[in-house]
Amino acid sequence: MAQFPVLEIFGPTIQGEGMVAGRKTMFIRTAGCDYSCSWCDSAFTWDGSAKDDIEMLSSETIIERLEALGGDQFNHVTVSGGNPALLKHLDELIEQLHKRGIQVALETQGSRWQPWFGKLDDLTISPKPPSSNMQTNWETLDTIIDNLIEQERLHHISLKVVIFNDGDFSYAEQVHKRYPQVPFYLQVGNDDLTETDDSQLALKLLSQYEWLINKTLASATLNSARVLPQLHALIWGNKRGV
Amino acid sequence: MAQFPVLEIFGPTIQGEGMVAGRKTMFIRTAGCDYSCSWCDSAFTWDGSAKDDIEMLSSETIIERLEALGGDQFNHVTVSGGNPALLKHLDELIEQLHKRGIQVALETQGSRWQPWFGKLDDLTISPKPPSSNMQTNWETLDTIIDNLIEQERLHHISLKVVIFNDGDFSYAEQVHKRYPQVPFYLQVGNDDLTETDDSQLALKLLSQYEWLINKTLASATLNSARVLPQLHALIWGNKRGV
Ligand code: SF4
Ligand code: SF4
Repeated sequence: MAQFPVLEIFGPTIQGEGMVAGRKTMFIRTAGCDYSCSWCDSAFTWDGSAKDDIEMLSSETIIERLEALGGDQFNHVTVSGGNPALLKHLDELIEQLHKRGIQVALETQGSRWQPWFGKLDDLTISPKPPSSNMQTNWETLDTIIDNLIEQERLHHISLKVVIFNDGDFSYAEQVHKRYPQVPFYLQVGNDDLTETDDSQLALKLLSQYEWLINKTLASATLNSARVLPQLHALIWGNKRGV
Repeated sequence: MAQFPVLEIFGPTIQGEGMVAGRKTMFIRTAGCDYSCSWCDSAFTWDGSAKDDIEMLSSETIIERLEALGGDQFNHVTVSGGNPALLKHLDELIEQLHKRGIQVALETQGSRWQPWFGKLDDLTISPKPPSSNMQTNWETLDTIIDNLIEQERLHHISLKVVIFNDGDFSYAEQVHKRYPQVPFYLQVGNDDLTETDDSQLALKLLSQYEWLINKTLASATLNSARVLPQLHALIWGNKRGV
């Protein structure tokens, strides 16, 4: 039975981002990432700072913890990271959750294919724009998207690009042009991970959201896009575990 | 050729609510409503105050106006009201838009069935909770939902209930229990339609949103719900036509 490196299990809360924004969900945050984005808001999953908090947990233990926290008040779980697509045997957990009538969402940057991608209810692929200082491997991303389209998963997947500046916005246009069939989300980046005044942060993020909306409205390339804020950041600011 | 009573055509902007929140769209606001909700934010569509602004427009003219405003920067149109489900021949407009590759969304309170409901890309049915002072006709709503399920439209419809207080929340639970298969959205009501300070309004709406999230998290009945704010109100406050 596989064991997975887990850093946090929390909820119930709402999914703050993307294709199921606002959905009641539990979160499992796995440790480890093959990227090191300049503005990563979960750097503790890969920079060593929280390595003593990593627990190696089986699907069974993860589900016990979820149930202890969430009782009968959830039917949806989001696996986040780090990059949970590094985990080979995650289908064990997905299947155990499905057996209990629980849906499973997952977010990854799209640097690695896993055969279990096709089993997810909501898969968000979030390639990282230039401001992250990371390089997109387009061949890998092509393979992932092609596989999922072949498996008729278009209703269960989306692409999401986080935008910090004009260069990121051009990158987003490029991603959407390359994969026009895949539901496409633009999201405001939070470049202020230290602000502790939640109201100040919310107003700042809303003004950046308005900037992103206006850019999107002006782009004929992005007519089918959906532009969203991070709902949890608007409410809970930079707090972790909510 | 049918003519439709139109009060506003505007955009491109984003859809601020519900199943396609964040989607780039144009708006057509039709005049006339069979309800008179206590907190209606579009009372000018039915209370007589804007009756001199109503234009009777054909599909062709509506599309000309949309194109003049939106150019090549949209592929999605939202028909809102008032209650656009009062309009018998709206399928003419829907078909004309579809011919041009434009998707069509519509919102109605669910007081009236129209055979063209099955042609909409995104149909939001928003029955009104007790705080509106309106009475839901459950038989009519049953018929609408049954018809749409029979026509296999579950991917294209949603229910949305706007919440102002605890009584509304119980009503929402009742709606979701009655139609468990239909994607279900909860939305924060805006009870302050006169606030002109956008920042003040945004912070107030965010705190009401947090209240609604917490109630939803505690309700096992609403495990599958999605809870959303009105995005446009967070950004543009109570301004009309954005
Ligand atoms: S891919 Fe995600 S978890 Fe990894 S470094 Fe980038 S933002 Fe952080
Ligand atoms: S149904 Fe909608 S338009 Fe009609 S009165 Fe109620 S809120 Fe206003």
